[in-house]
Amino acid sequence: MRRSLSGQLVLEDEGSFFVGGEVVATDYPMLPNTGLGAPGHITVNQMYVRYWIPAAKNDLAPVVMVHGSVHTGKTWETTPDGREGWATYFARSGFSVYAVDHCGRGRSGFNPSPINQARADSHAASLPAIQITTREGAWLNFRLGPSYGRFWPDSQFPEDAVDQYFSQLVPNAESTLVDGGANTVNALAALLDRIGPAIVMVHSQSGSYGLDLIRKRPKLVKGLINIEGSCTPVSAQEIEATLAKIPLLSLWGDHSIGAAGLNGDERRNGCMATVAALRAAGGRATFALLPDLGIRGNSHMLMLEKNNLRIADLVLEWIGENVPKNRAKEALI
Amino acid sequence: MRRSLSGQLVLEDEGSFFVGGEVVATDYPMLPNTGLGAPGHITVNQMYVRYWIPAAKNDLAPVVMVHGSVHTGKTWETTPDGREGWATYFARSGFSVYAVDHCGRGRSGFNPSPINQARADSHAASLPAIQITTREGAWLNFRLGPSYGRFWPDSQFPEDAVDQYFSQLVPNAESTLVDGGANTVNALAALLDRIGPAIVMVHSQSGSYGLDLIRKRPKLVKGLINIEGSCTPVSAQEIEATLAKIPLLSLWGDHSIGAAGLNGDERRNGCMATVAALRAAGGRATFALLPDLGIRGNSHMLMLEKNNLRIADLVLEWIGENVPKNRAKEALI
Repeated sequence: MRRSLSGQLVLEDEGSFFVGGEVVATDYPMLPNTGLGAPGHITVNQMYVRYWIPAAKNDLAPVVMVHGSVHTGKTWETTPDGREGWATYFARSGFSVYAVDHCGRGRSGFNPSPINQARADSHAASLPAIQITTREGAWLNFRLGPSYGRFWPDSQFPEDAVDQYFSQLVPNAESTLVDGGANTVNALAALLDRIGPAIVMVHSQSGSYGLDLIRKRPKLVKGLINIEGSCTPVSAQEIEATLAKIPLLSLWGDHSIGAAGLNGDERRNGCMATVAALRAAGGRATFALLPDLGIRGNSHMLMLEKNNLRIADLVLEWIGENVPKNRAKEALI
Repeated sequence: MRRSLSGQLVLEDEGSFFVGGEVVATDYPMLPNTGLGAPGHITVNQMYVRYWIPAAKNDLAPVVMVHGSVHTGKTWETTPDGREGWATYFARSGFSVYAVDHCGRGRSGFNPSPINQARADSHAASLPAIQITTREGAWLNFRLGPSYGRFWPDSQFPEDAVDQYFSQLVPNAESTLVDGGANTVNALAALLDRIGPAIVMVHSQSGSYGLDLIRKRPKLVKGLINIEGSCTPVSAQEIEATLAKIPLLSLWGDHSIGAAGLNGDERRNGCMATVAALRAAGGRATFALLPDLGIRGNSHMLMLEKNNLRIADLVLEWIGENVPKNRAKEALI
């Protein structure tokens, strides 16, 4: 891939956070397939902020960049033809830069309740159901604790930052697209076509996307790290033909034993079965339940919890031991 | 603000792009206030990809990170409590990292047509109108050229990348929020409360947001760079009390003379009038029409066109000459 920066970028810090936001009630969260979910509360009006803090700073105030209508903070990033955008150019000129997504836009999410309500009230089947999780539903499905507002005694979740976490939850608006989530699998295949062979890390809903991506691009997936995503169904035929040739790590947090719902026993046991089948076929596959490794208190969102870099080190170690080294085709031209 | 990275990040490259995507017709683009817009074509099913290429790379394939349901690529960025996320941690471990937003989610946009259609057909006023621009409308409103599909002879737009550009256009879903765009102004105020005094750069729709932000936080805006955004209305009283104390740059591309619509004569003339009023009150205000400076062929999206860094240099020079230097309060703790 061609380089976009016109010079090296040395950052003292970079990242993203939310500002603003409030908690409102919704009677219309919508669940996939099953219609309306239980009433609850969602975070709305939060604003996503991405920032770059250069190592070599000037003595001026930082710059906040705010996009226009029908755009997002992408406005200030890499140009459409792959050249450097203003965000990093200003950062390399010594400015701290903050670029936002308007409230209700992009990664700031929006409130789908009025749409879902109109759909439910009028039985207008032409309206897509737009899934959003309530805070209450997320607390249980993502296993933050045993009941809404209560963390596990050994919780690794950054408890004081729970509102920042809920700010990152957005409506699953892919239901407005023909073919829904299949578009993401197709786009992932297009991504590998562009960047070359890659290790693919998928989370939760995207577990099955990882399997479908292997089916589309078996030679471009060098390893699949599947964090609490589904590992089923897989056929004996495709295990033999493709899946057993690709290293798989199925990684699970704590407190899923006995848990109902999407991220509990059924999905985890399915992953154990797939890992066993892959190993029986000679594949390099690992099922890792963190408490079995002495790491306790992690939820479904283990990549952002207090011990997230310790778990990242486990993943990095697994990659080093299981993924064959090769010069990546994505080397910069 | 507390640092989130646990070590310096040295990047050979970073940025964002889209993969996938297709052009579909819509009869339901919706315009703000005026109801349905003209039928046309929009880009859907594109996937936003953000990437980090470290200067010190290992010899393994890059890592692609794919979030789960009701999440976005934010999953892999800074944790809710402000610590380093996996994207940069893996990059600092030597991996090239790519993190996506599912199609139909976050910065990948979505297709609001079924929602707008149901609203239009049933006259169900409870459904929000979700503005999206057609490609045809964008071509004229953002002044890419004189008619759809034709660029200006002196165009600075990266013409071969026009599909990448259209991929970044998303529905204005803030219409699903109570108070709509006012939430973004409130969130910008919360952002300045968090990071301290800042130079604020606004584009297009956000021009009025910049003025409203000054009204809310007059001491925290050190300068306003208003790129083809509205500069009106402003009262004589607020010019005297606050606006004339804050440096303003109103920056305009080419081909707006005689242009109708949102980004033409009316808005530009309003900015000239505001700049004149600010200067009469002793303020540091600049109206800059790029062709007057010998820079021709720029559209409404000048920050991403072929000469974008040349224009950035003009803005950087203006800042150096007009914005008072001071130690920013956002220095890392």
